[in-house]
Amino acid sequence: MSLGNVEQKDFLKSFDYFICDCDGVLWHGRKPVPGAQEVLKNLVSMGKKKFYFTNNSALTRKQFVDKFNSLGFDAKEEEILSTAWLTAKYLKNINFNKKVYVVGGTSIKEELDKFEIENFGAGPDNYEARGSSNFTLESSDIELVPDVGAVVVGYDLFFSYPKVAKANCYLNDPECLFLATNKDGKIHFGAGITVPGSGALVAAVEVCSDRKAEVIGKPSPFAIDHVLIPSGIDPKRCLMIGDRCSTDIHFGNQRGMITLLVETGVHRYSDLEKFKSSGMDHLIPSYYTSSVADISKIMRLP
Amino acid sequence: MSLGNVEQKDFLKSFDYFICDCDGVLWHGRKPVPGAQEVLKNLVSMGKKKFYFTNNSALTRKQFVDKFNSLGFDAKEEEILSTAWLTAKYLKNINFNKKVYVVGGTSIKEELDKFEIENFGAGPDNYEARGSSNFTLESSDIELVPDVGAVVVGYDLFFSYPKVAKANCYLNDPECLFLATNKDGKIHFGAGITVPGSGALVAAVEVCSDRKAEVIGKPSPFAIDHVLIPSGIDPKRCLMIGDRCSTDIHFGNQRGMITLLVETGVHRYSDLEKFKSSGMDHLIPSYYTSSVADISKIMRLP
Repeated sequence: MSLGNVEQKDFLKSFDYFICDCDGVLWHGRKPVPGAQEVLKNLVSMGKKKFYFTNNSALTRKQFVDKFNSLGFDAKEEEILSTAWLTAKYLKNINFNKKVYVVGGTSIKEELDKFEIENFGAGPDNYEARGSSNFTLESSDIELVPDVGAVVVGYDLFFSYPKVAKANCYLNDPECLFLATNKDGKIHFGAGITVPGSGALVAAVEVCSDRKAEVIGKPSPFAIDHVLIPSGIDPKRCLMIGDRCSTDIHFGNQRGMITLLVETGVHRYSDLEKFKSSGMDHLIPSYYTSSVADISKIMRLP
Repeated sequence: MSLGNVEQKDFLKSFDYFICDCDGVLWHGRKPVPGAQEVLKNLVSMGKKKFYFTNNSALTRKQFVDKFNSLGFDAKEEEILSTAWLTAKYLKNINFNKKVYVVGGTSIKEELDKFEIENFGAGPDNYEARGSSNFTLESSDIELVPDVGAVVVGYDLFFSYPKVAKANCYLNDPECLFLATNKDGKIHFGAGITVPGSGALVAAVEVCSDRKAEVIGKPSPFAIDHVLIPSGIDPKRCLMIGDRCSTDIHFGNQRGMITLLVETGVHRYSDLEKFKSSGMDHLIPSYYTSSVADISKIMRLP
């Protein structure tokens, strides 16, 4: 049901901050959602403060700023909650002082470097060419580095068997932390094609090591508890805008944020009935609307 | 409790066939379990017929015969139930006539070739060297072959991101079969080291594609229903000998085989209480003993 004029005003008064998911909300790949830039500008001109929160671990905050700007969005590094950065921040917060084995992209390496956290592993790791026929594993293929205190698994285009084998060896030590930037199983690559997300890669390491990774990205409340609240931000005065209920909406609902589902990405209003009837109330948003550009045509749930 | 003399004789009369798991029962890596060869010879001299059933998909039946012989065991190809061969047999049985995308070793390719099933994918699949910094995926990295009707995932030392991406694309077609040689999450590599098993690799493809693989190896009853029974073998006259309750014992229990846990591998008598109290009766063997070499000192469960 549409909000009346008074309700619409009350809605806009109900938050001081808005946190936008990116892919599926602000853009698809490199194509902005029509009108999204203007709505964000309007909200900012009303005095609202913005954050962007993406589970994508393939870029650094700096690279995200460049992407935002190139697509016509205003963005500063400190407004970006991206999982490569958040993972580095997590380790900094606990005064981590060992080495990190990174099963992920150079973005994770660069964010860890900025916090001066020693790390290795980003980039290709294949066997030396020994021929593929009757190839067998040798112990020299899983040479280990001493003093590793954490394994971080994120989006890794160079994901490979030797990486899973090494991650598993480090994780045999129960003291070694096991962090996942996020657990999205697939990524929409455009033209109806999906490609493996970090969640698929994390699953391989989890099954092998018989351990469960701690998730840093959405829906984990880490960013609320360790970034927003310490900055003096009240989650109850935040609007979380997202297209995926299992990450964005679940994330916001955990600490009492107001949540808004936009129907330009993964989930639709029609999915909510299914969640409700399966008792998954944590996936139900406060409001929904067709697009972030239609924030003036926001709907309340019946 | 030990079997009495009469019970021991009755036990030996109760089966005509015995099916031995290999690693952890007959050998560890390349080291035979002491006395195992002799016990198998004795059983055969009593008129028992033997099979070997291994979830290991890294070797062809022919390569297994060579391994058995080199370790002092008698073996013929037709006595070997190995998962690369079983997977090819599965596809042959259903008159499969499309292409198979193999995420696995050349052993799977060779077994498929023998059944004249068209297949591709075994061996390395990495990106062309384009530098690892700021590497992004391009659609040319996931070039697809037409007419693929099955994805087979097995043990694959060349497991890589592009392979998961391609498997996922083929599996987007709900008609495309999704087979796993087995789902063992890890393999004991010796010296306390474990390395990723097929189960870890299958998990990545499952999470990404949102589908569940059909398992060909233990504990799936495929080998009983489609190899043993069609050869006129009554499962109730088979003794299944294994060291892992979740694969070997579960496999045998499903069709009324007699099952024997040997304590030279993964599980011990002390694990059975845990299974019983969690209601996992399908993991409880008929008998247990310390080693396959101690088949004369077999124990019945209290």
